[in-house]
Amino acid sequence: MLNRVTDLLKIKYPVVQGGMVWCSGWRLAAAVSNNGGLGLLGAGSMSPGVLQEHITKCKAATKLPFGVNVPLIYQEIGSIIKLILEEEVQIVFSSAGNPNTWTKLLKDNGVTVVHVVSSSKFAKKAEDAGVDAVVAEGFEAGGHNGREETSTMALIPQVCNAVSLPVIAAGGICTGGGILAAMSLGAEGVQMGTRFALSEESSANVKFKQLCTTLNEGDTLLSLKKLSPTRLIRNELFDMLKEMEDRGASADELFAILGRGRTKAGMFEGDLANGELEIGQIVSLIREIEPVETIMKKLRAEFNDSLKKLKSAEEW
Amino acid sequence: MLNRVTDLLKIKYPVVQGGMVWCSGWRLAAAVSNNGGLGLLGAGSMSPGVLQEHITKCKAATKLPFGVNVPLIYQEIGSIIKLILEEEVQIVFSSAGNPNTWTKLLKDNGVTVVHVVSSSKFAKKAEDAGVDAVVAEGFEAGGHNGREETSTMALIPQVCNAVSLPVIAAGGICTGGGILAAMSLGAEGVQMGTRFALSEESSANVKFKQLCTTLNEGDTLLSLKKLSPTRLIRNELFDMLKEMEDRGASADELFAILGRGRTKAGMFEGDLANGELEIGQIVSLIREIEPVETIMKKLRAEFNDSLKKLKSAEEW
Repeated sequence: MLNRVTDLLKIKYPVVQGGMVWCSGWRLAAAVSNNGGLGLLGAGSMSPGVLQEHITKCKAATKLPFGVNVPLIYQEIGSIIKLILEEEVQIVFSSAGNPNTWTKLLKDNGVTVVHVVSSSKFAKKAEDAGVDAVVAEGFEAGGHNGREETSTMALIPQVCNAVSLPVIAAGGICTGGGILAAMSLGAEGVQMGTRFALSEESSANVKFKQLCTTLNEGDTLLSLKKLSPTRLIRNELFDMLKEMEDRGASADELFAILGRGRTKAGMFEGDLANGELEIGQIVSLIREIEPVETIMKKLRAEFNDSLKKLKSAEEW
Repeated sequence: MLNRVTDLLKIKYPVVQGGMVWCSGWRLAAAVSNNGGLGLLGAGSMSPGVLQEHITKCKAATKLPFGVNVPLIYQEIGSIIKLILEEEVQIVFSSAGNPNTWTKLLKDNGVTVVHVVSSSKFAKKAEDAGVDAVVAEGFEAGGHNGREETSTMALIPQVCNAVSLPVIAAGGICTGGGILAAMSLGAEGVQMGTRFALSEESSANVKFKQLCTTLNEGDTLLSLKKLSPTRLIRNELFDMLKEMEDRGASADELFAILGRGRTKAGMFEGDLANGELEIGQIVSLIREIEPVETIMKKLRAEFNDSLKKLKSAEEW
């Protein structure tokens, strides 16, 4: 095995597909696992019934390991965990919540648990809670994000110092060169969301994917800081919320306008003006919607190419 | 020579010390140059008379190349450029302004010009203006920063795609592993501010340096977005401005409170509560005030160590 991450997750390449709302169904997860990475179902946008269906279909579509991403603040978290144990899902990536609550139960049932963190402090807490590895996700990442705004470049070496667990880097990575950069910082794998959100197999609305391939630098910003910091595409909804924030609107006023169901409207149903469109900052580097097989091939070629260049670098 | 950056700047290691306000006098610049990097005087906090004095002293302290960082929005920019030409300074790093205005004059007089940018768009403009290289500085960097908030991890590959010039990465880099990461992303050198701001030779107030060595992740944030986005340490001044911003204060109201001279008060005179304290996000990785010689030795050892580890990595 390549390193502790490929060993732990029983995968060929240390590339995890982020479990994203409205993007990560069984087609995407199975395709990533079938191409040597780790696919994750994104439970955050699924009812327990829908998740059950996706687990069943994913098992039929791949014999290789896949996992489920579970936001721990999910309302029906008890049902989700029960389902995961009943279905004997082997790997859980938990996020957005306290890793102490469910890690022991999952581990006692033989599940590999990886927790997503945005700081060294949370990484240490996850290690103390008994998880097997952490994803350290930087400010660049799409969707919900940490309050400290630590970027991947700054976060990874600090998390690697703070814990002895394997560290998987996330946020701002979508090329083989990016993977090598993460490894230079001490990570043993990467989690990529944006690149896979724009794959053919992603369940996001094609209008959303197409918009993403036209975005430029600066077209996503971390916003909604009075609610929960979230990286969004700047659309009509964003501009309206931004204008309210600039005028000093309270969290309650912002929530009254935002409401619920905006990510589904935007990312799944394709309402590009009024939906909440979550994607990572690295989106401006992606100009094509491609099948997962092509993406994985390109990542490997880029990684090997960057590694060759570095191998020829002289020591100082 | 190692690569295009060491070749262009006639230095041994592709490490540039950022030209920072209140930190980068002749002692720091000469020490960095004498240890194989490129030292820069920070003209941003110097009158033309003071800059002249620092150029003279720097010439006496090193026979190796050094440069001057010039914010192009500087009020007395004409006098500064005249002085640089008269003193036959060989290298100028320009920032915060239009590279079209002065690049040709500097180049016609044999000066090497490097421009600092925060986006691919600005990198392309700098290339079109005839500069020799660009510094691509990410969201992590201390002090004044781009509006698009693109992190170093996301910025470097995009700038490398946009221009054929050598790219120097800045923002969030303070270790040899970070330098290797920047090179994995396509950069041929790095500019480090924070690490050198906390060196013994930095002219910043020792109280400021000591505070910096105690900071944790999240203790700096990009703020003053209604004025000019600036990464600051969260102190009493920061909290007051933040509270005003949350209430919807206008740019004029913020400026009326902020006024001028706050960086000098904080970073040079040591008023840690009421000063504007600029430092990069990576500050939380630095726990010691060290001489430049030690810093450069550590960077080389870390770089070589990280490179060795990567060299043993298998291709996929």
